[in-house]
Amino acid sequence: MRIFGDSISGNCLKVKWTADYLSLPYDWIEVDIRKGGSRTPAFLAMNPAGQVPVVLLDDGRPIAQSNAILLHLARGSQLIPDDPYDQAKMLEWLFWEQYSHEPYIAVARFQVLYLGKPVADLEPRLVERGTAALACLENALGDRRFLVADTLTLADIALIAYTRMAHHGGFDLADYPAVCRWIRQVEQLLRLEPAA
Amino acid sequence: MRIFGDSISGNCLKVKWTADYLSLPYDWIEVDIRKGGSRTPAFLAMNPAGQVPVVLLDDGRPIAQSNAILLHLARGSQLIPDDPYDQAKMLEWLFWEQYSHEPYIAVARFQVLYLGKPVADLEPRLVERGTAALACLENALGDRRFLVADTLTLADIALIAYTRMAHHGGFDLADYPAVCRWIRQVEQLLRLEPAA
Repeated sequence: MRIFGDSISGNCLKVKWTADYLSLPYDWIEVDIRKGGSRTPAFLAMNPAGQVPVVLLDDGRPIAQSNAILLHLARGSQLIPDDPYDQAKMLEWLFWEQYSHEPYIAVARFQVLYLGKPVADLEPRLVERGTAALACLENALGDRRFLVADTLTLADIALIAYTRMAHHGGFDLADYPAVCRWIRQVEQLLRLEPAA
Repeated sequence: MRIFGDSISGNCLKVKWTADYLSLPYDWIEVDIRKGGSRTPAFLAMNPAGQVPVVLLDDGRPIAQSNAILLHLARGSQLIPDDPYDQAKMLEWLFWEQYSHEPYIAVARFQVLYLGKPVADLEPRLVERGTAALACLENALGDRRFLVADTLTLADIALIAYTRMAHHGGFDLADYPAVCRWIRQVEQLLRLEPAA
């Protein structure tokens, strides 16, 4: 399997972490999105949407969309709960992440860290919705160890990807103690160094 | 099962269509999002994100996020392909829909149809990305009958929901003949009247 990803992207890193956690062998192909690496004809042939990550299976067939890739890599593993309701709640978090979290938390980080925009100049909508997403996570976690059931699932992996770097976009994670505790726990299970 | 949805929302209608197609019994509870129906304490207790649709299972447990609901309702049915790769491609479309299609096609429609904004005043980003989403669908469909494999899947149901109403937001579907053909086919299978 080949993973085409940009190491600055949480969407790509979550695919790497899942493959590492499940001991799936892969080659990592670095794609520099800021230099147009996801807009070349070769890349667009794999994913016409021009987005990283893309996984090329050993038979040459591509899969795009980070959370679709996670679900494919983790099928049959303990990262997907057996219970149908727990599975639905995990999927709920995966869709929520892409609709109500990533477009604010990840975009604010990208604008500040890579485009050099001052935090004070971020669109108010980004800050407001990013803050709402962090508050939603904080409330959902409470005393829980994980987002779904009492076990590590793809929901935790997908959600920590950008949450652990939210401070890059000006969000103060100290306001969210349950989120911080959960990030550290999931990082330990994935054997990640705490995010700088 | 109870489906809490607003009939003006494609995200809610896709849940209704899936339940109808699979002959699953349900009560439809109309929630008027424009009158704050998804922001009441009772609604937020079911879904803290304050978004429709929400399904309450017969045991009282809620599931939110339209595509997570679809996947739960359709488990074990022919709307989810057995083949792992086809399943991954279906999931790819479901995530793409929420990230790269709905935020432009559905939002443009809402602003024009329900907020009365002239099409000419839409944010250029909405028009540009909505157009890109329709072009992506057109290219993916080509001569195909369905988005994944040669059978109706959740990808088709999720994607026609707002695509068939894209003209409400000023997009001209006549520019996308493969999309129009596919919409009519899927509408027939779901026994829907063509969208006005």
